[in-house]
Order: sequence, then C-alpha cells, then structure tokens
Amino acid sequence: MARFLKNKDAAMGKAPGEMIFIGSQKVQQATLHVIDYDREHLTEIEIADIKEGRHFKETDTVTWININGLHETDVIRDVGQAFGLHPLVIEDILNTGQRPKMEEYDDTLFFTLKIMTYDEKEERIHNEQLSMVLGRTFLLTFQERPGDVFEPVRERIRKHKGRIRGVGIDYLAYALLDTVVDKYIFIIERIGEQIEEIEDEILENPTPAILAKINTYKREMNYVRKTIRPAREFILHLSRLDSDLIDDPTAPFLKDLLDLATQAVEVIDTYREMLSDHLNIFNTGISNRLNEIMKVLTIFSAIFIPLTFIAGIYGTNFEYVPELHFRYSYFIFWVVLLGVAVTMIRFFKRRNWL
Amino acid sequence: MARFLKNKDAAMGKAPGEMIFIGSQKVQQATLHVIDYDREHLTEIEIADIKEGRHFKETDTVTWININGLHETDVIRDVGQAFGLHPLVIEDILNTGQRPKMEEYDDTLFFTLKIMTYDEKEERIHNEQLSMVLGRTFLLTFQERPGDVFEPVRERIRKHKGRIRGVGIDYLAYALLDTVVDKYIFIIERIGEQIEEIEDEILENPTPAILAKINTYKREMNYVRKTIRPAREFILHLSRLDSDLIDDPTAPFLKDLLDLATQAVEVIDTYREMLSDHLNIFNTGISNRLNEIMKVLTIFSAIFIPLTFIAGIYGTNFEYVPELHFRYSYFIFWVVLLGVAVTMIRFFKRRNWL
Amino acid sequence: MARFLKNKDAAMGKAPGEMIFIGSQKVQQATLHVIDYDREHLTEIEIADIKEGRHFKETDTVTWININGLHETDVIRDVGQAFGLHPLVIEDILNTGQRPKMEEYDDTLFFTLKIMTYDEKEERIHNEQLSMVLGRTFLLTFQERPGDVFEPVRERIRKHKGRIRGVGIDYLAYALLDTVVDKYIFIIERIGEQIEEIEDEILENPTPAILAKINTYKREMNYVRKTIRPAREFILHLSRLDSDLIDDPTAPFLKDLLDLATQAVEVIDTYREMLSDHLNIFNTGISNRLNEIMKVLTIFSAIFIPLTFIAGIYGTNFEYVPELHFRYSYFIFWVVLLGVAVTMIRFFKRRNWL
Amino acid sequence: MARFLKNKDAAMGKAPGEMIFIGSQKVQQATLHVIDYDREHLTEIEIADIKEGRHFKETDTVTWININGLHETDVIRDVGQAFGLHPLVIEDILNTGQRPKMEEYDDTLFFTLKIMTYDEKEERIHNEQLSMVLGRTFLLTFQERPGDVFEPVRERIRKHKGRIRGVGIDYLAYALLDTVVDKYIFIIERIGEQIEEIEDEILENPTPAILAKINTYKREMNYVRKTIRPAREFILHLSRLDSDLIDDPTAPFLKDLLDLATQAVEVIDTYREMLSDHLNIFNTGISNRLNEIMKVLTIFSAIFIPLTFIAGIYGTNFEYVPELHFRYSYFIFWVVLLGVAVTMIRFFKRRNWL
Amino acid sequence: MARFLKNKDAAMGKAPGEMIFIGSQKVQQATLHVIDYDREHLTEIEIADIKEGRHFKETDTVTWININGLHETDVIRDVGQAFGLHPLVIEDILNTGQRPKMEEYDDTLFFTLKIMTYDEKEERIHNEQLSMVLGRTFLLTFQERPGDVFEPVRERIRKHKGRIRGVGIDYLAYALLDTVVDKYIFIIERIGEQIEEIEDEILENPTPAILAKINTYKREMNYVRKTIRPAREFILHLSRLDSDLIDDPTAPFLKDLLDLATQAVEVIDTYREMLSDHLNIFNTGISNRLNEIMKVLTIFSAIFIPLTFIAGIYGTNFEYVPELHFRYSYFIFWVVLLGVAVTMIRFFKRRNWL
Repeated sequence: MARFLKNKDAAMGKAPGEMIFIGSQKVQQATLHVIDYDREHLTEIEIADIKEGRHFKETDTVTWININGLHETDVIRDVGQAFGLHPLVIEDILNTGQRPKMEEYDDTLFFTLKIMTYDEKEERIHNEQLSMVLGRTFLLTFQERPGDVFEPVRERIRKHKGRIRGVGIDYLAYALLDTVVDKYIFIIERIGEQIEEIEDEILENPTPAILAKINTYKREMNYVRKTIRPAREFILHLSRLDSDLIDDPTAPFLKDLLDLATQAVEVIDTYREMLSDHLNIFNTGISNRLNEIMKVLTIFSAIFIPLTFIAGIYGTNFEYVPELHFRYSYFIFWVVLLGVAVTMIRFFKRRNWL
Repeated sequence: MARFLKNKDAAMGKAPGEMIFIGSQKVQQATLHVIDYDREHLTEIEIADIKEGRHFKETDTVTWININGLHETDVIRDVGQAFGLHPLVIEDILNTGQRPKMEEYDDTLFFTLKIMTYDEKEERIHNEQLSMVLGRTFLLTFQERPGDVFEPVRERIRKHKGRIRGVGIDYLAYALLDTVVDKYIFIIERIGEQIEEIEDEILENPTPAILAKINTYKREMNYVRKTIRPAREFILHLSRLDSDLIDDPTAPFLKDLLDLATQAVEVIDTYREMLSDHLNIFNTGISNRLNEIMKVLTIFSAIFIPLTFIAGIYGTNFEYVPELHFRYSYFIFWVVLLGVAVTMIRFFKRRNWL
Repeated sequence: MARFLKNKDAAMGKAPGEMIFIGSQKVQQATLHVIDYDREHLTEIEIADIKEGRHFKETDTVTWININGLHETDVIRDVGQAFGLHPLVIEDILNTGQRPKMEEYDDTLFFTLKIMTYDEKEERIHNEQLSMVLGRTFLLTFQERPGDVFEPVRERIRKHKGRIRGVGIDYLAYALLDTVVDKYIFIIERIGEQIEEIEDEILENPTPAILAKINTYKREMNYVRKTIRPAREFILHLSRLDSDLIDDPTAPFLKDLLDLATQAVEVIDTYREMLSDHLNIFNTGISNRLNEIMKVLTIFSAIFIPLTFIAGIYGTNFEYVPELHFRYSYFIFWVVLLGVAVTMIRFFKRRNWL
Repeated sequence: MARFLKNKDAAMGKAPGEMIFIGSQKVQQATLHVIDYDREHLTEIEIADIKEGRHFKETDTVTWININGLHETDVIRDVGQAFGLHPLVIEDILNTGQRPKMEEYDDTLFFTLKIMTYDEKEERIHNEQLSMVLGRTFLLTFQERPGDVFEPVRERIRKHKGRIRGVGIDYLAYALLDTVVDKYIFIIERIGEQIEEIEDEILENPTPAILAKINTYKREMNYVRKTIRPAREFILHLSRLDSDLIDDPTAPFLKDLLDLATQAVEVIDTYREMLSDHLNIFNTGISNRLNEIMKVLTIFSAIFIPLTFIAGIYGTNFEYVPELHFRYSYFIFWVVLLGVAVTMIRFFKRRNWL
Repeated sequence: MARFLKNKDAAMGKAPGEMIFIGSQKVQQATLHVIDYDREHLTEIEIADIKEGRHFKETDTVTWININGLHETDVIRDVGQAFGLHPLVIEDILNTGQRPKMEEYDDTLFFTLKIMTYDEKEERIHNEQLSMVLGRTFLLTFQERPGDVFEPVRERIRKHKGRIRGVGIDYLAYALLDTVVDKYIFIIERIGEQIEEIEDEILENPTPAILAKINTYKREMNYVRKTIRPAREFILHLSRLDSDLIDDPTAPFLKDLLDLATQAVEVIDTYREMLSDHLNIFNTGISNRLNEIMKVLTIFSAIFIPLTFIAGIYGTNFEYVPELHFRYSYFIFWVVLLGVAVTMIRFFKRRNWL
C-alpha cells in the first residue's frame, strides 16, 4: 500500500459526505472518555454511548470528549448527530488519509492533523490521525486508538497545574496541539542527531550501509515534512483567525505554537539539504576510492608489464642472441629490471600517486 | 505527435472562435444523453438532435445533457446555439489540447479539464477532455467518447442516494468534478505504490530495467502534474467564486474538493522528489558496482602480474643463471611465489578490499 | 555576437531617445503597407512616404499600417512624427534587442515582442522583432522585414471572414498577437516532438550525437523561454488593463490569448525538465556502459592472467622440475588450466556478471 | 546532541509558560549589570538581586539591565515579575534553542536572536542566545554568559561618544542589534575569504582534505543562514513597526540595520552557491584525474602487451620454427618490436593522449 | 580579502554614523568638479574646497558636483555639512562595500550603486562605488576615483545635445544611472559572447582549460548578479516613487531604465543556467572520454591476453608435448592465434566498440 497516499478505493464512486472508514482498524472497540471541568469541579468518566455524555454539551463547563477507534462508524455518526457536525466533517474524521487542515463552521472549528511516533528500531515514522472539533463549551477529539500522548495534559487538568483549569476550552485545544507539535520537534531531533552524526563517517568510509541510511533519513524527512507543512499552514491560519471561539489571552500561545511549527519546518528543510550534501559527499567519496583502486592497478601494471616483457625477450629461442652467452648477462639483466622499476616508481612519485 | 502539447496545425491561421476539432476521433457518432430531475421526478433519454432537448432549458428542474464525441462539429454548434454559448467556449470544447481552466460568462460558468485513465499494461496515462457548461438550470458535459466514469453519479441520481436529488445543479457539477479528482488520486496512488516499492531494489540491484522504470514513472508523474495543477488552480478559483450560480450549501463541498486537489498536487511533488532521490541512489549504486568490478580486476592483476614476471625471469635462456642449477631452486621458487601472493592478499585485506 | 543579448555598442553613450538602429539590416528598402476598412469598405495600398497615409489617422475606419525594414531611421522618424509617438517608443522600435513589453501612453498602447521562426535544418530558432502601436483608430506594426506571418489575417479582412471586419481596431491587434503566439506554440510543438522521441534512444544507445541533440534542444528551449515569458507577462497585463482603447467584447479573446501564452510557458518548463531528466538518464547510460566495458576487461583478465602464470611456471628453465618429466604432465596441465577457467567463470556467474 | 535543534526533552509534557531552562549552563552564577543614564548623568552598578534595580523602572532615564546566566531560573523569574513580563516571554528567554523572533506586547517589545562567535581553530561557529525586552524607559538583555561583545557600546555610553547619550532607549536597543549584526558580517567574511581562497586549489589539486573543507564551510554556512534569516525577518518587521516605543529619529538607523542584515543573507546565499560550484568543480577534477590514470594504464598496457605476445611466440618450443634459425632473426625481432611500439605511440599521439 | 564582502574590520565597534572610510585608496587627492547649467548658461569649474561651490546650492540652475576620492573623509564631511546630509548617508558614501540601495530623506534622495569595469586580460570584473545625492537643484556624485564613464553625459551638456539642457536635475540623475546600467549590459554581453562561444568546444574537447573558463565565467556572473540585482530593485522602487523630486516627464525614462535593468538580470540568469548546462555537458564529455579510453584498453587486453596465454602454453618445457613435434604445428599455431584474434575483433564489432 502506498504510504504517502492512503488507499481510497473503498470510497471511489461513493457520494461525498457518506460515512466510510478509510484506514486500518487499530483497536477492538471504540471508547469514549469524558473530562468535564471548570476552576472548581472536575468529572472524569468513560462512557459507552454518546447519549450518556450529551448533557455536557449544554453546561458552561469545559467538556473534553476523546473518542478512540474510528472503524465503528455508528459511534462516530452518533457523536456527529449529538453535536450537530456537518457530514463532511464526519467524512474527514473517518478518512485517515486526510491532509491536515482546519475548517470553520458556524459555531465550531474543525482541525485534523497527525500524531507522529518514531519506531527507533525500524527507523520509520508512523502517523495516527487526530481530529478535533472545538465548540463553545466542548472539545471533541478523535483518535485511531488510545494513546498516552495526551496523558500529561490530563495530568495538568487533574492536578490543577499551570493555567489550564482557569481558562477556556480554546486553551485546552491549544494545549493538545502544542503537545502534538512538541512531539514533532522531538522526532525531528532524534533523526537530526543521526543525520549530523553520520557526516564524518561518510567522508572516511562511504559504504553501501551508509548510503542506505542516508536514503532512509531522506525518505523519513520527506514524510515528516509532508505531515508538518500543512499543519503549520493551518496553525498560521488559526493564529490569525478572527473568531469568537478563540479568546484574547490564548492568542500569544497560538503565536508561540506557530513559531514552534515554523521552526520545525525550517529545521526539516535544513536537514533535507544536509542529506543532499551528504549524498554528494558520498558520491565524491566513491569516486575518490575508485581513483585509489585504479592507481594501485596502474602502478602494478605499469611496473611489471615492461619487466615481464624484458624477461620475455630473453625467453625467446632464437639461435643467435649474443646477450645470452655473455658471462654477466644475467647480472646486467637484473640491473636493467631494477632500473626500469626505479624509473617507474619515480615517475609515479612525481605524479603524487605514491 | 507531441504528447505534452496537442497538434494545432489544423487551427493555424484560422480566425479565433472558428469551429475546428483538434484531436483524434474516438467514437463513431456523437450521442446526447439527457437526465432531467428534481426531488420527485426523473426523466432519462437519449436524443439524436439537441432540438429534442431544448425545452429542458426552460424548466426549473435540473437538466444534465452529456454529449459524447466532439468530431461532429455540427452537433456541437447546434448545442452551442441552443444554449447561447460564446464562440470561444465552442472553440475550447473542440480543442482537446486545451489547458484546464474556468471561464465566467454572464449566466454560465465554463470549465474544461481532463479525465485520466491509467493503462496498467503500458504503464501509461491517457487523458480525455471533459468540458462542462453550468447554467442556472442546466449542465452540459462534453466528452470525447462515452465512458463509465460518471455512471456512479447517475446511479446516485436514479436511486435517490445521498443528497444529490434534493439540491441544485451546482451540486451535480461538484459531484462530477469530485469523481474526476477522485480518479486522479486513484491513479497517483497506483503509480505511487510502484515508486515506493522499487526503492529497495534500487539499492540492491541497479539494473537498466529499474532505470527504465524510474524514467517511466518520472515521465508519467510529469504528465499527471501538468494535468492536475491547472485543474487545482481553477478549483481554487471556483471555491472562492462569488457567483449566484453556486449556492451556499455547496461551498463546503467545493472547499473539500479543493483540499483533495491540493493533496493530489502535493503528493505528486513528493513522488517526483522521491524519483529524483531514486535516480541519485541508482547512480550511486552503479558507481558502487564499478568499484567492486575494479577491485576484482585489481586484485587479480596485482597478484598474478608479479608472479608471472618472476616465472618469466626463470624462463630466460641466459647461459649463466646460477639459481637454475641448484637442487631446491624450484622449491624455493614456489615459496617465493606464495610469499608474494600472501603479501599482496594481506595488502588488500588491510585496505578492506577483501 | 552574443545571441541572447543584442549588441548595443552603437548606442553606448548616446542620449536616450536618440534614433539609432540596433540590429542587422534584413531588407533593401523600408515599405509601408496600408489597409483601411470598416464593415462596408476596404482600401489596401502600398505607399512610399507616410505623408500619403496621414489622412487615415483622422477617419473613423480601422487603419492598419505595416512598416517593414527598420534600418531607414528617417522613415521611422516620419511615422513617429505623423502619429505623435514618444521618442522612447521610436528608440524601442529601432532597438531589435528590446525585451518584450507593453507601455501605456496617453492615447496609444505600445507593445513590442518577437516573431519566432524555426530553421528545421539548422535546428535553430530565429527571432524577428515586431512592434505595435495601437491608437484609437489606427494600428502601426513595425517588422524587420516583410513576412507572410500576417497574411492569413489580411485574408480574413479581405474575405470578410469571421468577426474581424465588424469589430474595432483592438480586435485587429488581438488577432495579430494571437497569430504570433500560435506560431510560438507551433514551434514548441516541433521541438517538443523531437524531445519526446529521443527518450527511448537515450536509454538504449547513449551516443555523443544524442548528447549534442539534448544540448541543442536545451539551448533552443532556453531561447524560446526567454522570448515568451516576458510576452506572457505583458499579455497578462493587457488582459487586465482598464483602458478605453480595449472594448469590452475583446476582453474574452484576450483572456483566451493569455491562456494560450500560459500554456506555452508551462509546456516549455515541462520540456526543460524533461531535457534535464534526459541528461540524467544519458549520464546513467554512460556509466552503465562503462560498467559493461569493465566487466569484459575484468572477466578476460581474471581468467587468462592466472592461466598465463601457470604456463609461465612450466616455461622456467630450472634443472630439477619433477613435473616436467612425468608422462601425463602435459595432460594434467591442461586439466588444471581448464579447472581454473571453469572456476573463474562460475565465480563471475555467481556475481551475475555473465 | 543535534546542533541544529536544541534538545527539548526537559520540556516535553510540561505546561506552556512553565519555567524550564533548556541549554547548557555556561556561567557559575547569574549576574545583573545596570547602566542608567541620560544626557547628564550616568550610573553603572552590579547588583545581586533585581529588587535593588527595581526603582530604575520608574525613572525617566534610560536603564539598561544586562542579565548573564540563564540557568538560575529564580533570578529570571524575579526579573520577569519586577518588569511584568508575560510567562511566554520568560519561557522563550530560558529556551536557548529559540528561533530568532520579535513579539509585541502591550508596552514592551521582546526580541530574541543569537550572538555568533567563530572558533577559528575548530572552524566552527558557536551561538549564544540574546534576548531583549524593550520598555518605554528600560531595556533588559539576557545572555547565557558575560561577553565583551557589548563592551564598545558601553564605552560609547561612558565616553559620551556619538549620539547615544542624547537619544532614547530605542537607539540603545538598535545599537546592540547593530553590534550583533556587525559580528555576523564579520564572521561571514572570515569564512568567505577561505571559500574564495580554495577555488584555485580545487582545480589544480582535488584532495580529500579540500573536500572536507568544502563540506565544513557548507555546514557552517547553513548554520549561519539558519541563524541570520529569521533575524533579518524580524529586523524587517521592526523597521516597519508602527509603535510608539520606536522614535522617529531611530527609523533611518533601523532601515540601515535592515540593509546590513539583507546584505548578510544575500552574501550567504552567494557563498552557498559558490560552494556548490566548488563541489561540482571538485568532482570534475576527480573525474579528470581518473582519466589521467586510465590513460597511463592504457598506454602502458597497449604498448607492452602486444610486445610481450610477440616475445612469447618465439619463446615457444615448437621443433620447426624457421625464423628461429636465421642469422638476423633476433635483430629483425627487435626491429618488429620497435615498429609496434612506435605505431602505438603514434596512435596515442593522434588521440592527444600523449 | 573577501571580494564578495568588503572588510568592515575598521568599522567594528564604532558608533553608527561615524565617518570611517572602508575600502582601498585609489586616487592621490580628492577633487571636486562642478557643472552648473540651465538652458542658456553653463559654468564648469574644478574647486578645491566645497565652500567655493556652496553658493550653487541656492541658485535655481542645475548644479552637478562630482567628488572623486573618498579616503579624505574631511572633504566628504565638509560636503555633507554644506548640503545637510544625514550622518548615515555620509557613512554609506564612505563604505565602499555598501549594498546598492536608495534612501528617501526629507528633501533629498540618496542612491548608491556600483560602476563595473571589465578587465579583459584577467577576465575579471572590478567594481567602483558610485553614490548620488539628488536634491531639488543639485546633484552630488561620489566616486572612488576619476573615471571617464560620465564623460559622454558631460559632452551632451556642453554641446546642448538631446534634451538634457532643457530639463531638470532628475533627468541628469537618470542620464547618469542610464550610463551605468548601459555599462552593465555591455559587460554582460562581453562575457556572454564567450559563454556562447565555448559551447561547441565543450562537446568536442573537454579539457581542464575549458573547465577553468567555465568556472571563471560562473564566478564573474555571480559577481555581476550580486551587483545588479539590488540596483534593479531600487530602480524599480525609484520608477514607482511618488516624490516631487522626480518630474512627470522623467517617468517614462525611468520606466525604460527599469526595463533595461530587468533585461540585464534576466540575461544573467539565462547565462548562469547556460553555464550549469555547460558544466553538465563537460562532465558527460569527460565520462565519454573515459569510456573511449577503457574501450581501447579492453580491446587490447582482450585480444592479446588470450594470445599470450596460448604462446605461453607452447613455451612450457614439458617433456611430452606431442604438438611440439608435428611438422606443421607452428603453422597451425599461427592459424589458431589469428582465429582467436578475429573472433575477438568480431565480438567487439558486434558490441559497436570498433
């Protein structure tokens, strides 16, 4: 299956807005996790049916419902109906090959982006889709499977840490986005370290294994970039959005998030260029080695081929070869051989080959 | 014939707006297929002459007339007159080398773009031109030949599936565009899979056949890109259009379509870069193999050439070669040969050539 | 002489607006050809002096004066005075190295661009400068020499074909520009066909002749691009111009012309990229062949060098070489030689060299 | 540790705005250095606690507080509280991997950028983070360790040199930024000189040491660029800022600073291109040398291999080889050998190999 | 010294606006040359001290003061004071490494750009800085040394040629800029001719000398580009400037100047691309030659190595080699040798190597 483009065969020829799950099932059963809080109160429950959580929509408290598992389209449809989501939003949530983007609806904002994880052993990045619907008093998050990426945010809510309990739902959305982007930076750094490390090795010992590494990092960096660039785009859009869903005090935090995303994109580009340079250096290293090999071959050939020829001359069976019969012929023969050898060696020394 | 630019010889020196068919005839006879519907009624007929379909123009129901076969310029002219199309629109419909674009006229919108099909056997993409004229109550579509690409949409109309019967003509136009763009994504994915697959092969076994593949994918990706980029451009334009031909409820669907087209363009660029990387890796692989070959040659030469030389010395016919007459000369001779060989092998081991 | 930049030595240090012809004389004597028409009347004459044509300026009919030959600066000056042209316009008309551009003056528009012709034998494009001054009732065109490029337009005027006789002077200007841009497309297509054709040859047989071809097409494509891009720029500007010299009905035609020019620029870029790919493939082909050559060399060397060495051993003249005296030595010697040869061949087969 | 992206592990999962120092401790203890002046008075003291310096905030004189050492987060927090800084500003000051940027707050401007130093021995650039908070009457600067980079500005203040004592706090901020950017230019020039110098060497003697140098300069230029480009961006923003924190007379100085930063960015790009050219030339040089080596090998082989073969023929032990018994055979043999050698040499001369 | 960035060491740590000359002294003593004219009068004098020329500032006539030699900072300071120049203007005039730019002050415009000269022998471009201050009735020009580049303009003033005497000071400024840009075009053309000329040579005979040439042209083109691009930028800005220092009739001339500068920049880019293509072709040429060399080597080796082996066999001293004793062995031996040789030659012919 193409990794850079999710299979949409299932959806071909279907009506837009129809509910088809595109992706691979990653969890047994969909679960709904609800946190409802304000400065004083905190409720945290797991529910099986959205109807149990519906009343939270009406209250003024901050309500965060996290839905894990997208393959149960019924659950998603129920959530959609309960919170009045547009059919296209449902379609986008279910299509895990969705490009990161933001959509403004009448009284909700919809974002979708990727949570990245890095499999260090395989040296491969995996993406999971995260969709968020931000309403005036509720935040819905949809993940493909339960993950612990948002656990620190939940901890902050539970322990009343930082400003999170005192401010609105928009700050919660920001906090989750910030967690996701922090993860991007973390992964880029991991790969980046390795990219910076192989530099010296390339110059000294350009092996096919190094080449395979360069290639892997290049592919992964392309993959990261494809994920982060549209995310940065919508964060830019979000930070400039004039919507009453975003309160004034949250604005500098969004600006800060934008800086982080911009830095991520820039660093990716720097690493991509660095990898191109690595490949160039690698190629030059290969050429250098070829030169070395050819020098060895040439030096051996150029020294011994003339010598062998001279030996060959005196191996001929001509009847009348006067040199063969002199007393010191064999000695002189050796002197000549040495003379030729020394001359050749000097020749190569002058050319800096030795 | 140049595939990236259609032959316009026929039209050279002709007045603009004249009716000349540019392309190759792909169907025997032009046919007109009419679907007329609203929420309650549905009429579907094949007609031979546009005059039979003219009255649909006046009704308030949604009227979709699909014309297959462009070489019969008379048919196209009649349609043009019946629906009051600008001469340039007729010219553009007939010129199958037209760049995808949108034109706004007083009470119609005109689009032209390509329907892509992928010939898996030949690994080659074929384009067919699709032109659409969107009026207030009618939609004209012009194809080079009858195709089944729009059959699912017709089925949705017939079976009253999704929202299509309940909404306006603009939604029908969107549904057709969506089908076309879905097809693009589908084809990119097909080629993309193959591009991702050959990656490992390149590193391990860079054969000319792989090179030919890289080249084919590159050319096809260029071809796809040339087709999709202007299409995305006009979809962008369309999604921002302030026209009363586009109803408000259709807007989010067009925005969604734009996202799809944007994703297509981005993925094409990603694959193009990947192919460039592939070519680089391929070249490096070739260089690597050359090094291997040269190592083999050098090792053989550097070991045997000196040995042959030594043998040559004792093949000379000098009268006085003392070594020839010693009892163990031949044995010592072999020891020397082995000594030289071992030295050379060690030399190459130290250089990591063995 | 630099082809990509016309020699301006003659004009160095001269005052701007002075009349100096920059270029090479291409016609014996300047000629003036006048066509004056409206829906009913048509006058077509050749005149020697602009004074004879001056009265056309005052009439309401469409007056097109075509001046061939720029080296007679007196003629150009007289025309300039008769029609009140700015000194800089005269200077630009005379400088055949002028970059394509449009200038707005109080009641005239001035364009200058290139007419391209393709010398198929030399595989080289030649440019001729065309300048146009569009007034309210007159159109002046200045060419370096008489050409038949505008003959079809004249025919359309004479034969009352298409809309040309019924509409204004701006449509005539459009018709001429359209003819010029059609010619661009035609030439790009010619070269494009050849570029697409050599693709297969490059993979199979990368000869220096193919390399020379790639180089030629690349240079010509650069040349075309340098000519067309600024032309497209001013057509864009023209199509958006808010001037009462351009009537409303002409607007869609200019938009269409812009589409054509845009398509030309895009196709040029596609072909330029394709040529870059061609060069890459060519280089890879060269490397592939080198590998083939080296394999042949290595196989021969690695098989025969050891054999020669073994033969050399038994060519030595040592007194005590027991093997020489055995009955079947020579036979065993051959068996050994064959054994070595077969081993080497197997070695190369395992490495996929054979 | 990745040099192009600072380790943010410490901050993962922490609430935004929390105070965590990201970087490596470069100084024992944080120090605060205060300069307070107007046209007539000048006070310069070192204080241990910001409370001692707090009263300067109220006065109308220019107050510049320089804080060295960021690891003591308590000190930074105290400063932040004393001057009412936003939590995100504090966070940014403490994160030494911050991307250069400017933030506008209600009555302060916050900038952060890098001070570059060049370690000539290691040929490596080091960055230190500088953060500045510009208020109406105070300027806070935060550095990782005390440096003498601002000493000349202090001298100018002390010695009443130039305009610095007579103008506002914004001019002081400009003067510090100018010093930092001057330092950038200085470092680019240092590396640039070396880049320009190696040019001739590359053509004449492409050694791996030169390659390592090119690579080093490339990496450092990338590093400089990554540092300067966002700095230039915010200087651009600053020079266009409509804020009452920036007085009119300072505007041309900021414009001048922008020019300097723009020049820096442009020169970096020029040098980066130059390095790419260097690498190309280097590779071509390597190929050239390979050709030279192969020529030597080929000339030797092509001359001596046929000669050796001829000698081999007359080394055979056939009973009936008539030539062996002629009187002048050996002499003629030498003539043939010389003839072959001369022919080969001529052959190579004609091919321009000798 | 870095050529692409002027040494600013002298200015490090100095207050902005301080007067330090950055550059190398090119003339013994600064001189001031004054031309004062209107339609009727003309005064032309050399003065030693600006005080003698001060009164020209007050008159309504056009006053052009040309100052040669920047190292005498006192002279420049006096001029600055006499004409009320901003300290930053003085600083910019003295810094000969200044990036070309324009600054608007209350009633003056300040430009600085480079005068280029081409040393044909060294194939190297030299830059000299030209600064201009345009006031309402005066124009100050500052050059590093006296040059004859403006002599033609002076001649036009003296001889009352063209429009120069009848129009304002802004036209004079334009005329000088036009002269400078004409010079750019002239130099680009010189180098361009050479770039176009070497094309054929590269394909046929890729020698290191050609490579050195390509490299030189590339470096010089980079240098020219770095000089011209910012100049074009400020000419663009100037041509759109809404300032009462620029009269309406001068506007079309500035537009024309902009076209010229744009053309220069575009042609530089075309030549830069052409040089990249040249380098590619060069590399391919080198590879081609390597293939040729290797073919020669392989053909010689593959023909003679087997032959030598066969000869070696019959040079062995085995006692029982039946072939040695046959009457026609030697003759058959030759037949076999020829047979092998012919087979090999056919093999290479079939592979198109011969």
